[in-house]
Amino acid sequence: MSPVVTLLTDFGTADGYVAAMKGVLLRHAPEARLVDAGQGVPQGAVRRAAWALSRYWDRFPGGTVHVVVVDPGVGTGRRALALEADGRFVVAPDNGVSSRVLEAADAWRAVSVDRDGLPAVPGTGGAGSSATFHGRDVFAPAAALLARGEGLDGLGPPLDDPVRIPEPPPRSTPEGILGQVVTVDGFGNLVTNVPASRVTAGAAVRIAGRTVSLRRTYGDAEPGRVLALINSSQRLEVAVRDGSAARVLDVGEGEGVLVVEGG
Amino acid sequence: MSPVVTLLTDFGTADGYVAAMKGVLLRHAPEARLVDAGQGVPQGAVRRAAWALSRYWDRFPGGTVHVVVVDPGVGTGRRALALEADGRFVVAPDNGVSSRVLEAADAWRAVSVDRDGLPAVPGTGGAGSSATFHGRDVFAPAAALLARGEGLDGLGPPLDDPVRIPEPPPRSTPEGILGQVVTVDGFGNLVTNVPASRVTAGAAVRIAGRTVSLRRTYGDAEPGRVLALINSSQRLEVAVRDGSAARVLDVGEGEGVLVVEGG
Amino acid sequence: MSPVVTLLTDFGTADGYVAAMKGVLLRHAPEARLVDAGQGVPQGAVRRAAWALSRYWDRFPGGTVHVVVVDPGVGTGRRALALEADGRFVVAPDNGVSSRVLEAADAWRAVSVDRDGLPAVPGTGGAGSSATFHGRDVFAPAAALLARGEGLDGLGPPLDDPVRIPEPPPRSTPEGILGQVVTVDGFGNLVTNVPASRVTAGAAVRIAGRTVSLRRTYGDAEPGRVLALINSSQRLEVAVRDGSAARVLDVGEGEGVLVVEGG
Repeated sequence: MSPVVTLLTDFGTADGYVAAMKGVLLRHAPEARLVDAGQGVPQGAVRRAAWALSRYWDRFPGGTVHVVVVDPGVGTGRRALALEADGRFVVAPDNGVSSRVLEAADAWRAVSVDRDGLPAVPGTGGAGSSATFHGRDVFAPAAALLARGEGLDGLGPPLDDPVRIPEPPPRSTPEGILGQVVTVDGFGNLVTNVPASRVTAGAAVRIAGRTVSLRRTYGDAEPGRVLALINSSQRLEVAVRDGSAARVLDVGEGEGVLVVEGG
Repeated sequence: MSPVVTLLTDFGTADGYVAAMKGVLLRHAPEARLVDAGQGVPQGAVRRAAWALSRYWDRFPGGTVHVVVVDPGVGTGRRALALEADGRFVVAPDNGVSSRVLEAADAWRAVSVDRDGLPAVPGTGGAGSSATFHGRDVFAPAAALLARGEGLDGLGPPLDDPVRIPEPPPRSTPEGILGQVVTVDGFGNLVTNVPASRVTAGAAVRIAGRTVSLRRTYGDAEPGRVLALINSSQRLEVAVRDGSAARVLDVGEGEGVLVVEGG
Repeated sequence: MSPVVTLLTDFGTADGYVAAMKGVLLRHAPEARLVDAGQGVPQGAVRRAAWALSRYWDRFPGGTVHVVVVDPGVGTGRRALALEADGRFVVAPDNGVSSRVLEAADAWRAVSVDRDGLPAVPGTGGAGSSATFHGRDVFAPAAALLARGEGLDGLGPPLDDPVRIPEPPPRSTPEGILGQVVTVDGFGNLVTNVPASRVTAGAAVRIAGRTVSLRRTYGDAEPGRVLALINSSQRLEVAVRDGSAARVLDVGEGEGVLVVEGG
């Protein structure tokens, strides 16, 4: 099969920036099968993109190349990362956007992409890449090389300390398991750092001054009511049926959540 | 040719949910050609998604698999539907989102997807599927099986009474044909239940206290003016040139519309 | 390789309009590889779409067919354009959306698409195309013919005077180079008509009553600060680090910008 290349960015779909990346990819890897992972990440939201990537990177077949460009530091000293993790590749700025992959992978190795080895992108002004659009001039050409099967090592020297956005683990307290909201999705669901394994049946969840019951799924609560559940990534999540928990509770990332055994 | 699989959801493009579905699809149907039908359906808008699907399902080649996930009842008792209609397939929650296809198809048959027969999705916690993300754990695997040519019958037992969102027919009254707005699109165009065949040349249209002239196309009115026309689905539609009829008239679904012969 | 067909529209992703185009494309050019260039152009924003197209059209491999449908004049007398430019094709309404391609191409020729020669789209009511959805009924079928390799000349008679949206050149004044903002992207970056070749190192830029320093990239300024740089299209651009220059300066298209040598 032809290699799959996915793209996740904060570029939106009005301005042709992602399309420029796709053109470069198809120019340099004509067999690649392009898949939109999503171009609607909020601008500069590296942490949110890291969570998005965590939801799909290992769902794809082995050999898939995942390109992620949420890159407020473009053109500065930040490195360009190419990563092999459990048989898939990630090409992204070294700004923490790969954190959740590094954490979840059984094995990974990374290189710092050396721009001088990349296929030239015409019309980018000078030394092979612009200072402001590495999605087109660095990440897409690097991904094209990987899609062509040229391997990680040809892209640059090893990089052993990729930037990570730490995820705090939940803590055991006398009152129960104390965790926090680590990301909020587009439905306003509050995803926490508490794994399913720490939540016993019948537990109650305290957040923002409320006590919330644990349910199986969104539809098990009345419309508009706050509930807690184990989500599709096996995490404790606080949600509102047919609504936004972030709005109803007026909370976001970092909000504390307490899991009390037996309610 | 490789089978085409389209995806329509309300998941947006910031969080990687649709990408997870795409990964599962390509894992289980590596030859599938993925096509975004659109990930921007307003959250939970089953009726709007049903109209969206009606605009494209039969435009695609025979054998195409259309996946639709607008699924506020995920994890509850609602069934999972797989449908063959005029040579195309639809895989979706059984919540009415297929209504317009059932209505328009010359012939259809449906099954209730049996989750136990689906390829397992790793890491979904237990019995083969999460309670909160059937797009990834039920609909994508079922669509993959159809894309691989395994046929509808292998997916589960027949389902003869899929949920339908009824569309009221227009009525003849002494004043004229009385219809209503059945959906509003992203341009603010008001699509009605009045078919082209019920609209005579020179008819006038009354809506929201105004009398509106029938034109051929949007550009036949002055900018900002309300007009009526026969739309690309052969329906009476009320629109505003270079603007939103929904906003200008301050109306939405269910609004009455009267077609008066000869104006 | 199979031909690539890209799509750029203002149709959004909630209503199935772009999906209808994709279905028609795959019906008539089953081998085509569809690529979303973006469906999020603001409604009716022909000028913005012209800039978007300029960023990607020549990045794609030779033979690529670019479909652009931002078409407030659909169904009126405006012509339908098919264009060959530097080995790529553009299919679009003749409303100026191809202006930047015409300007940038080394060589181009165009035809006015003759609807009678197109493959029929079933269910479009009468003479082969609706009056309101040429994306589906004219541009997609025309693009399918090009993707099948049938050549520009079969689509219709030559068209020598495509509509152009003029881009004013910058002027030399005693104070410096006087240009203007020609488009604003989704980040709020202000793209000007001043080419990199007219900007000397150490120049200062005056806009909206402020004097702004020239930097290499966004991250070279403090967060929230206004800066100027040479962008990835080799143009002078005014931006705000981690913010929107359009909002911070409260300016848009047409705003004057003065480049003062040596600051």
